[in-house]
Amino acid sequence: MIKLNCDLGESYGAWRMPHDDLIMPYVDMANIACGFHSGDPQAIQAAIQSAAKHNAQIGAHPSYPDLQGFGRRSMAMTEDELIPLIHYQIAALQGMAKIQSKTVDYVKPHGALYNDMMANTVLFETVLKAVSSYSGNLSLVIQAVSNWQNLQAIADKYQVKLQFEAFADRRYADTGLLVSRAKPGAVLQLNDMYQQVERMVKKQEVVTESGQILSLKIDTICVHGDSSGAAQVVKHIRGLLS
Amino acid sequence: MIKLNCDLGESYGAWRMPHDDLIMPYVDMANIACGFHSGDPQAIQAAIQSAAKHNAQIGAHPSYPDLQGFGRRSMAMTEDELIPLIHYQIAALQGMAKIQSKTVDYVKPHGALYNDMMANTVLFETVLKAVSSYSGNLSLVIQAVSNWQNLQAIADKYQVKLQFEAFADRRYADTGLLVSRAKPGAVLQLNDMYQQVERMVKKQEVVTESGQILSLKIDTICVHGDSSGAAQVVKHIRGLLS
Amino acid sequence: MIKLNCDLGESYGAWRMPHDDLIMPYVDMANIACGFHSGDPQAIQAAIQSAAKHNAQIGAHPSYPDLQGFGRRSMAMTEDELIPLIHYQIAALQGMAKIQSKTVDYVKPHGALYNDMMANTVLFETVLKAVSSYSGNLSLVIQAVSNWQNLQAIADKYQVKLQFEAFADRRYADTGLLVSRAKPGAVLQLNDMYQQVERMVKKQEVVTESGQILSLKIDTICVHGDSSGAAQVVKHIRGLLS
Amino acid sequence: MIKLNCDLGESYGAWRMPHDDLIMPYVDMANIACGFHSGDPQAIQAAIQSAAKHNAQIGAHPSYPDLQGFGRRSMAMTEDELIPLIHYQIAALQGMAKIQSKTVDYVKPHGALYNDMMANTVLFETVLKAVSSYSGNLSLVIQAVSNWQNLQAIADKYQVKLQFEAFADRRYADTGLLVSRAKPGAVLQLNDMYQQVERMVKKQEVVTESGQILSLKIDTICVHGDSSGAAQVVKHIRGLLS
Repeated sequence: MIKLNCDLGESYGAWRMPHDDLIMPYVDMANIACGFHSGDPQAIQAAIQSAAKHNAQIGAHPSYPDLQGFGRRSMAMTEDELIPLIHYQIAALQGMAKIQSKTVDYVKPHGALYNDMMANTVLFETVLKAVSSYSGNLSLVIQAVSNWQNLQAIADKYQVKLQFEAFADRRYADTGLLVSRAKPGAVLQLNDMYQQVERMVKKQEVVTESGQILSLKIDTICVHGDSSGAAQVVKHIRGLLS
Repeated sequence: MIKLNCDLGESYGAWRMPHDDLIMPYVDMANIACGFHSGDPQAIQAAIQSAAKHNAQIGAHPSYPDLQGFGRRSMAMTEDELIPLIHYQIAALQGMAKIQSKTVDYVKPHGALYNDMMANTVLFETVLKAVSSYSGNLSLVIQAVSNWQNLQAIADKYQVKLQFEAFADRRYADTGLLVSRAKPGAVLQLNDMYQQVERMVKKQEVVTESGQILSLKIDTICVHGDSSGAAQVVKHIRGLLS
Repeated sequence: MIKLNCDLGESYGAWRMPHDDLIMPYVDMANIACGFHSGDPQAIQAAIQSAAKHNAQIGAHPSYPDLQGFGRRSMAMTEDELIPLIHYQIAALQGMAKIQSKTVDYVKPHGALYNDMMANTVLFETVLKAVSSYSGNLSLVIQAVSNWQNLQAIADKYQVKLQFEAFADRRYADTGLLVSRAKPGAVLQLNDMYQQVERMVKKQEVVTESGQILSLKIDTICVHGDSSGAAQVVKHIRGLLS
Repeated sequence: MIKLNCDLGESYGAWRMPHDDLIMPYVDMANIACGFHSGDPQAIQAAIQSAAKHNAQIGAHPSYPDLQGFGRRSMAMTEDELIPLIHYQIAALQGMAKIQSKTVDYVKPHGALYNDMMANTVLFETVLKAVSSYSGNLSLVIQAVSNWQNLQAIADKYQVKLQFEAFADRRYADTGLLVSRAKPGAVLQLNDMYQQVERMVKKQEVVTESGQILSLKIDTICVHGDSSGAAQVVKHIRGLLS
């Protein structure tokens, strides 16, 4: 059964991400910001409350320490810096979840940290070390890619369960990577998105930009919640999964 | 048995508080910064490691969100803001402590948050709510004052155990409050400090600036670790306690 | 001639205040965030560009250092801390304005700093010192109040020109202060707002919540730009001024 | 005449860099932190005051926005992000200097931004664009390297004057780059440092780790001020220059 995941809790002070509560009912997994790219303590508390109400799983969504850049800029950090940075963010969320009788079930790195983890095996191992040394019970969400078995083999060394995620609204290159947002057509229109999700669900595959069919192991599909129509879209995708 | 407590883990990035490791062997309770007035994740990790090595208890030392002011400036925050702010900080420390098989045993607010809590009953209750809703097992360190029974009665409503702390190196006013640092003689010289500690330990009392004797319930004595000779001083005070 | 002023440039990283460009054509004075409650360097650059295009005056909108609280929380800062804090923010904006051949004409403190300045004469003098020591050419925007002559007398000591602002959309108490947002009716509906502005423009007076008529010296009217319909409202108010 | 430059004003809140005032008398050029890796407004104000008193030139020392990492970590920022970021920092310092009748004479990027600028021509051009678009009167301090004429040619396109700096206390590789701090002997002992400075001053050359002699165009020598004996060392080096 494929799950829906969505980045939530990304408000900060007066800057609000207003659609969280509308989307939460339709997602299985809420990736909650931990304060380093967004997510002040009140926003985190509210996101946990919403996840509890709608029975969504909670995942930590740790980031490079870059509020100004919303965690979207790579930072050259050493393993000695990154591991406690990730621990701190998981811990903050986990403790706040526990107050509401919830627990953090998984970790999904945010933004540039996610991209760097996918592009750089050393960094992928650093993230695995951080996750496995935090607790034996956390899984790690990473991108569904063609060479997933290699990544799984690395994760096995750290006894970390992986969850592979595909993107509902992004076009795939033949390599299995996403077509850069800079290119036209990188972000799918609604109907294309729905078709892509259906194929993911039914056949565990995507059609790439050149028309090739690419097999992917898909455990979860990522949807976005930051536009005003997002809730309707997520609700529709939710329907495609059952 | 009176315990020694000290603020530790207050390094941030390149700014180091270099004496932590020298002081940790002599303290019973390490109040560890949680990242909001100081204490980046690496500093927290190192402080927990040091506390674990020297068998010190760990306390969360949460602050107003004011890195630039080192948490020393009052901020007008509502209960709705403060409770998750305190939760977040305790949680971050608790999760990082758990990785090293330690736990957070108590909470001691930092700087202006501490002073405001002592000056303002509403804020004191807010802190109590934050501590008790985090976990039933955390005690709260507050200042040893004459009207401690009133404060204990309030804390009892929230079932939070209080630990009263006295200050080794600060002169007391007749009110039981500390003489303002702005006044000459507010900070005691070494010999006066040692005499004051001895009297605290043997008689649970202090001599105020006017020469009056003031009875105080004292569970723990706060020492400072931010000067180069601090370790020697703390070691000496340690000797006075046994 | 009464001018319209509006807080602009309050985006930060991924958090956008999307209506700035729509509102700028209708305001005379753009209060631009300086980075401490919002306003990252790119947002500031864009706001200056927009002000230059639409020929709006630029004002510095300095804040307490409180990104997480959007500058809305009072902070207990000393004069020694506040003056360089305000200087820094004016300076950053002034230098960036100069690149685009604009200059900072005035200062309007933001949020809690504004409220504290109005409530506390000591802080008002601190702000005046900061403004006058920065440059002899900056005026200071403060709230239009009944005792404006007292405030003008204080400002005269520092040779700072004051500009008094009234609020288009807020109901006034008999004291000349604003009715607290916590009270029902504190924020005016559209028609009431337009009526209030007309009276301000024609008669330099407001009708208070009890129905009294209050004379105010009004140099500028503050409008808000943070809602989706804001541009239409501001455009309409613009029409009432000419 | 070769000048001495030193990074100063790097205090932040309670974290002090205590030796600034002792070193300022011996340096010609004070590189003052601008608030993004360190340097709160009070620290900046104090550093400018000290520079004014001792008649040192003031340079802006802008950084990536990374307080937690003291600006020592590369961040992947676009030109659209970097240029206003650099403008903002120069502007803040320039405006604060003007209050004390000083001016910013040059820019020296800090930490990772400096290293990235030296390693990456695209970034070097971005920094040049930022400097030249800020004002026509600012020079840029970069590392004295063998291929300095190439860099000068690029700078000429932007009409920015370069000042080449060599490092008093660092061993040089045959490439003209610095030997990595990770290697033994990378940081020179006192006598070797003094010998290196003498040779720089008299012959505009350094002896590399393999014993080769390397010619360098040297306009300024960088000294460090963050250790307790720094003032004595800087004073001695000052003597070698005259």
